[in-house]
Amino acid sequence: MQIDIQLLPLPPSIEILSGRTVVVIDVLRATSVIVSALARGAAEIIPVSTVEDATRVAETFPRGSTLLGGERESRKIEGFDFGNSPAEYTSEKIRGKRLILTTTNGTKAFHSVAGAKEILAGSFLNARATAQRCLDSGRDILIFPSGDKGRFSIEDVACGGMLIERIAERRGRHLDLSDAAFSSRLLYERFKGGLVEVLRLSDHGKDLLALGLGEDLLYCAQTDITDLVPIFTHGVIRIF
Amino acid sequence: MQIDIQLLPLPPSIEILSGRTVVVIDVLRATSVIVSALARGAAEIIPVSTVEDATRVAETFPRGSTLLGGERESRKIEGFDFGNSPAEYTSEKIRGKRLILTTTNGTKAFHSVAGAKEILAGSFLNARATAQRCLDSGRDILIFPSGDKGRFSIEDVACGGMLIERIAERRGRHLDLSDAAFSSRLLYERFKGGLVEVLRLSDHGKDLLALGLGEDLLYCAQTDITDLVPIFTHGVIRIF
Repeated sequence: MQIDIQLLPLPPSIEILSGRTVVVIDVLRATSVIVSALARGAAEIIPVSTVEDATRVAETFPRGSTLLGGERESRKIEGFDFGNSPAEYTSEKIRGKRLILTTTNGTKAFHSVAGAKEILAGSFLNARATAQRCLDSGRDILIFPSGDKGRFSIEDVACGGMLIERIAERRGRHLDLSDAAFSSRLLYERFKGGLVEVLRLSDHGKDLLALGLGEDLLYCAQTDITDLVPIFTHGVIRIF
Repeated sequence: MQIDIQLLPLPPSIEILSGRTVVVIDVLRATSVIVSALARGAAEIIPVSTVEDATRVAETFPRGSTLLGGERESRKIEGFDFGNSPAEYTSEKIRGKRLILTTTNGTKAFHSVAGAKEILAGSFLNARATAQRCLDSGRDILIFPSGDKGRFSIEDVACGGMLIERIAERRGRHLDLSDAAFSSRLLYERFKGGLVEVLRLSDHGKDLLALGLGEDLLYCAQTDITDLVPIFTHGVIRIF
């Protein structure tokens, strides 16, 4: 079993994707929102790249069945039901609903890896279950941090490192880590005693703190609060 | 002063390059060879991308003035004077000569960053002097690890982390590290007690060990054996 991690959010080649399980990670905040909304009963989530796509896709469904969520420049989009703070997605509001989600980094990332055999949404919130699902797949794994506007995002790579550590603890010697995967595991080890630290010092985390969204960092730094692993298939993210 | 590091060896945009000092790093082995050959008296080094370019460029100079060096699949190229082991480049052979060098990763990297304000060749061998030159430049810095056939190379990023640590120790709070630069510094800290370890466990280092080139790892893991900082300008690498 090989594990690699793509340190910059560039679309991998179809040769790399095919046959692999890919884990998309956007700790701040798209995959944390996705995990939270599904854990609180959302029926399904459709990740789209643009605000225009979001409203167009919403119009194809019956009124009242579908809600809009996401951000631009980290702020809620005008006319949308939700921003990109996981705590907004309460069970009361989201249960049984379809969510159309568009964010700067995370929702695009799912489309960047669309040629993979299986695509999971990972975060600190569901790290244990995601690692287990990777182990159960038996496939080679590519971890895909969503990055920060095309740049390296330390918090996503640290989360990838957590998955790698948990997989490595189970597989031991029967695991082939790339240089990037090995380095990510070391990065995680530096922060494992207090994950909120890596969120606070990250470029993206600093932006959120400046906008008064510090509560989101505390929320997204929680580990293993659910065993759900969202899966992206045919354009839709669901729990199977 | 900002410091960033490009974790995958993709050509940066001209907007990123212009105005910056770029440090190209290929610890195994191109920049270690470049530093060593110039330290032992080579007149200048012309990095080229292909074997054909190397022989074509050599023919434009008087016979006897120019030597050919480099590797493909880590082995010496047929008909060339040198492979890519720094120890081959003895003072006796290289003094006063022009070297045309072509390697899989490192020599291409110089051309990838050709739009930068200033381009330095960094390695563990000349780390202290390279960090000082970056400080003296007063410019924003981009560290450019050459990678391993387009992939992340842990040994080059660890060397970048060493430069970042040395610059940070001098600049203190007046330094703006990107997430990637911060992570590279942490990676270096993990290995600073014994740099040869990061070479031995790297994908590229393992390939060299399998080819019986373990001596090259010991050589390239040495720190600060010279204060020379090679500079790439107008297609040629020289000491100014």
